[in-house]
Formats: sequence, structure tokens, C-alpha cells
Amino acid sequence: MRIDDLDTPCVVIDLDRVDRNLRRFQTYCDDNGLANRPHVKTHKIPEFARRQVALGAGGIVCQKLGEAEVMADAGLDDILIPYNLVGAHKLRRAVALARRVTLSLTCDSEATAEGLSAAFDQAGLTVALSVECDTGAKRCGVQSPAEAAALARRIDALPGLTFAGLMTYPSPGSQHEVQAFLTEAVAECAAAGLRADVVSNGGSPDMWTAHTVAAATEHRAGTYIYYDRSMVAFGAASLDDCALRVRATVVSRPTADRVIVDAGSKTISSDIINTEGHCTVLEYPAARLSKLSEEHGHLDFSGESVRPAIGEILTIVPNHACAVSNLHDVVHGVVGDDVERSYPVAARGRVV
Amino acid sequence: MRIDDLDTPCVVIDLDRVDRNLRRFQTYCDDNGLANRPHVKTHKIPEFARRQVALGAGGIVCQKLGEAEVMADAGLDDILIPYNLVGAHKLRRAVALARRVTLSLTCDSEATAEGLSAAFDQAGLTVALSVECDTGAKRCGVQSPAEAAALARRIDALPGLTFAGLMTYPSPGSQHEVQAFLTEAVAECAAAGLRADVVSNGGSPDMWTAHTVAAATEHRAGTYIYYDRSMVAFGAASLDDCALRVRATVVSRPTADRVIVDAGSKTISSDIINTEGHCTVLEYPAARLSKLSEEHGHLDFSGESVRPAIGEILTIVPNHACAVSNLHDVVHGVVGDDVERSYPVAARGRVV
Repeated sequence: MRIDDLDTPCVVIDLDRVDRNLRRFQTYCDDNGLANRPHVKTHKIPEFARRQVALGAGGIVCQKLGEAEVMADAGLDDILIPYNLVGAHKLRRAVALARRVTLSLTCDSEATAEGLSAAFDQAGLTVALSVECDTGAKRCGVQSPAEAAALARRIDALPGLTFAGLMTYPSPGSQHEVQAFLTEAVAECAAAGLRADVVSNGGSPDMWTAHTVAAATEHRAGTYIYYDRSMVAFGAASLDDCALRVRATVVSRPTADRVIVDAGSKTISSDIINTEGHCTVLEYPAARLSKLSEEHGHLDFSGESVRPAIGEILTIVPNHACAVSNLHDVVHGVVGDDVERSYPVAARGRVV
Repeated sequence: MRIDDLDTPCVVIDLDRVDRNLRRFQTYCDDNGLANRPHVKTHKIPEFARRQVALGAGGIVCQKLGEAEVMADAGLDDILIPYNLVGAHKLRRAVALARRVTLSLTCDSEATAEGLSAAFDQAGLTVALSVECDTGAKRCGVQSPAEAAALARRIDALPGLTFAGLMTYPSPGSQHEVQAFLTEAVAECAAAGLRADVVSNGGSPDMWTAHTVAAATEHRAGTYIYYDRSMVAFGAASLDDCALRVRATVVSRPTADRVIVDAGSKTISSDIINTEGHCTVLEYPAARLSKLSEEHGHLDFSGESVRPAIGEILTIVPNHACAVSNLHDVVHGVVGDDVERSYPVAARGRVV
């Protein structure tokens, strides 16, 4: 099947670019002595997770239990869930998952640690638990190295838990602050007699300077398999590296400059990350996606000299590849203009 | 099952509110002599579409063929697709759909009309086709009443097509312009000897003043089944009318004012429509959802006096109910605190 035979809108994944992207960051990690632990949220496809492991990744990251369960079903056997698991349902599922894969978890509070402790201890299991540190991203995480060490001590004291180390999801461009926080937290843990064997840093925007956070033992990047427009804006990739594209058909040309395509927010998501506008059209780089409604993309062609005809198919690089993956049941793997195979996005929609 | 037994994040639909919302707008349409043709994109659930028809809706609206096919499978038999269908795949599917339901379509160009004509004529069928008019929303649609009449004449001349009338998706607050455009377009069609039997207006923001567009014979509203925060902002509903809610658990309390819940953009979507911020938390109305990452909602509680504990479940009214429906495989119908049944969101993810 040829790429032109696919109905639109659809998501195509350039498999050569995927391979190149995966190898390049694995090599970077290997060269810098960093364990590569890819976040599968970007692709949500077990085959790609297996490929990442085959190329050298030590294990994978899933943000939700539901994603981890899909990956475990597909044979992935070393999974980190860097998310505060709270509530009876999730504790039950975490225990069940730990019986079949090497599971590691994180927490940022005593309340979460105590819940995990009770569940795993009651099951006669022990789970590796790291402390999440807020090194500046202002999301989850303990607020200081001293708090990190205090929570580490609490974890160490609780049954059913083994203190594993530290984890952070950093703010882009903050390597210096991340390094300072983690170094001090490792030292404070050591002063309490606790070794942080795993110090897990993350994020794709700063993936190529991950080695400057010398305290880290591993890096969690997700988007590096596909990249996207936001990663181009962050300087982590070129537009040519972007392996995920949305193909959309021009369905209306109501005015001289307005071009409407059949891909809207339901197809490419309304996420805006570090970018102006919603996408880049490869064939018409000066076209500006000025607005998205659910099923329509509104393109302003005032900056372009040529206009596409109704029926013409455009190739769109979206802002946020992870969000696009989550919107589609299936993506199509292509090599050049040939569709090699389709991939069910098996872990799509796993909100729990 | 009780609502508290549902794991989070999850979407709950208050069935009493659904019923009240459906009846109220049906009554409004009946009282004003408007045909009610609900847009199923908001719920994407055949059971709710059937309920809308049982209460008096003449037929339904689907924005994509894939949604229409799901609804046809479920027995819905009068479907309007107000979308320019372009390309061989879609024309084939449209013909197949027309063989089993009463299908009507719209177009805004000769190119689209000619494609439909060729496909339906070759199949030995005739399809009802309206002209889409851009009455100010600046999306699809012919730009003037004269263009509408010209396209109507072209439709009338092409085999496989019957000119059915006019359709518009208006800009909020533009009833006067919509009425002027449609009235003139109807007159220009009449002058060409063509009767616009169906004049279809749409949109939920102005649903309660739909009768002021006297030229319209029917109204297409979608969100009125659930409403959402954007409809509250438009003044079309109260917060209490909102039947779709997202339940989310507090998973982190890293600082005095920061509360992180387990519902992010993957759960409530990052759509912002006519609103500031992303949601309202019913239990803490002064809490401000300041940021969404994929799996985390970042709440600023600086305006609240009380803070929820880790593990507490919050009830969120999102900005855009339609986008939320599209993100979930299942929603849970509740009456009070009882979960009556779960509904697969059967038409979710039908991008094509």
C-alpha cells in the first residue's frame, strides 16, 4: 500500500526516522554512561517499546498503570511508573503488576509512601520506591534536598518498600539547578546512611545536555522517538527529524487565503508547547495554522504564493506528538511512500 | 456501585441532568417551530442519540463518516453530515451509508459537489445536498448569498444530487448577520427557481435565541446534552446544568497552595473556548486550574481557605465536553451518587 492510499486524516510514522532517532539518543546515553529509560507515552505502542529495549534501553517508563499493564502484556519486564499512586484500586493493580514485572515507583509524600507500604507489605512483596524531587518544574515533588532525605528515611523505615533513589521531571533549561538539587539530595541521603542507586532525570527538551546533570544515573526521554514541533522549538531536533506526521486533505477554499483541512483538534490536539500556532505544513512552510476546531484545521495562506486545490493532501508536523498518539487508535508505519504496516496504539486512552 | 467506587480519573454523566437538558431544548425547539437536529459529537454514544430522537429530534448530525457509521449501526436512520466529503474513500463510504439510512450532506464548492455527484450517480442514487454558508464564523462556506445560489444551481444541474437547502455554522452572537445572510440566500435560490426546504442553523452558544434566526427551519446543537464550562461562559447554561464531570484524585500537595490531581490534558483536554483556565472544581470554586500537563492537573489553591488532602476526590467541570468525550473509551452514567451503568463511547476517535 502507498501512503496516498491512506484515507485522511491519518497519522504516519516514518520508520527510518524512528530508527535513526532511537539509535542516536541511545548512542548519546551509552557514550555518556547514562541509562536510557524511554517514556512510552509518546508512542504508546509495545512494538516500539521493545525496539527501544532491543537497542539498549534498560527499561521503560509509563505514566499510568494502564499503560504499564499494556506494556507488561506485551513482554516489557522493567517498568518505572514515576507517578504518585494513590487509592485502593491503584494499589491493588500496582501489586498485581509487581508480581509479573520488575516494577519501580516514585512518591513525593509520606501519605503516598504509607499507602504503597501497606499494600505491598500485605502482599508479602517489596517494591523499589524513589523520591520525586521538584527541581523547578513546579509540578509534583519534594521541595528541598532535606525533604528528599527525610522522605527517603521514611521509605527506608516502612515495610514493603526499598528506598531506590531520586527522580525528577525538570523544567527545560534548568540543568544547573537540577544538578545542584540532586547532588545535595544524594549527599543528604548518604548522610542518613541511604544510597540513592538510581537518580533519574527526564525530559526531551534538554536530552542532548543530559550529561551535564552529572548526579543522574539515567535519563527518561519520551518524544525523542518521534520528535515534534515543540522539540524543534526547543532546539532538540530538526523538522526533518520529526517522524510523526499527520496527513490531511484540503476540504474547503472559501476565500483567497483561507484553506481548511480535515484535521482539527480531534486529530492533532490543541496542545501548544513552546510554540506559536499549532503545526507546520511541510509542503507550504509559510502557511499558518491559525485556528483549530474539532474537525477542521484553519490555515492562513496569506504568506504563501501558491494555494493547494480542494482534494490536495498536506503533510503536517504537529506541536505535540504524545497528544496525537493518544487521539488515534491506529498509526501507519511508512518507509518513504510505502506503508509497511499499521500499529494499533495499544496503550492509547489509558487514563487510569 | 457508588460513584466513590470508580477509580480516577473518570468521566461521570449525571443522567437526571442529561434528561432535563434534552427535554428543555426539545421543548424550546417545539415551541418555536424549529426542527431539533442534535449533533452527536458531544456524547458520541448511540444510546443518547436514540434518546434525543425519542424525545422529538428529527434526526442527528455527525461531523465525520466514521461517527455516522457507528450511529447507523445502532439504528439511527436520519443523519446529516455537514462536512465537505472529499476523496474516493469517503465518497465510497458515503454511498454505502446512503443505502442504509436517510443521508443528507453539505458542500461549499463545485469541486465537492461534482465529486459527490459522480459517486452517487454512478451508484444509481440521489443524495440531498445543501450549500454551506459562511455567515461570519470564517470556517467553511460560500461567502455570499449570490455564491450560495450559484452553487445551488450547480447542485440542481448535477446528476445524483438533489438541492436540499442551506446550512451554516455561525459565529456566537451573530444571529442578526446569520438571519440576513440566510434570508437573502433563500431569496436568491427562489429567484433561480430553487426551494431551500432545509435551512439549518447550528451551535450551542446561541441555542436559546435560535428562534431569532427566522429563516432557519432547524437547529443543530451538540453541547446542550452535557453543557460545559464554555457554555456557562457563553451564558447558555448554569454550572449546575453541566452533566459531564471529571472525577480526579489529589495525588500531590507539594507546597502550601499547589494541589496536583491525576487528571491532565489527556483526561480533560487542553481546549480553551471562551474561558480563562481549564476547569471549575465544584468543591473548591476558588481553586484555579493553572496548568495542565498530560497526566497532571495543576491547581492553585491560593484563593481557597481549605486544602484537600492527598487521596481526596475532586469533581471537575471541564471547558469542552465534546473533547473530553473523545478522550475516553467509557463514561459512567450516575444518578445522584449511584452508578447506573457505563457507556462505551462508541463513536470516539472516529477521525475519518
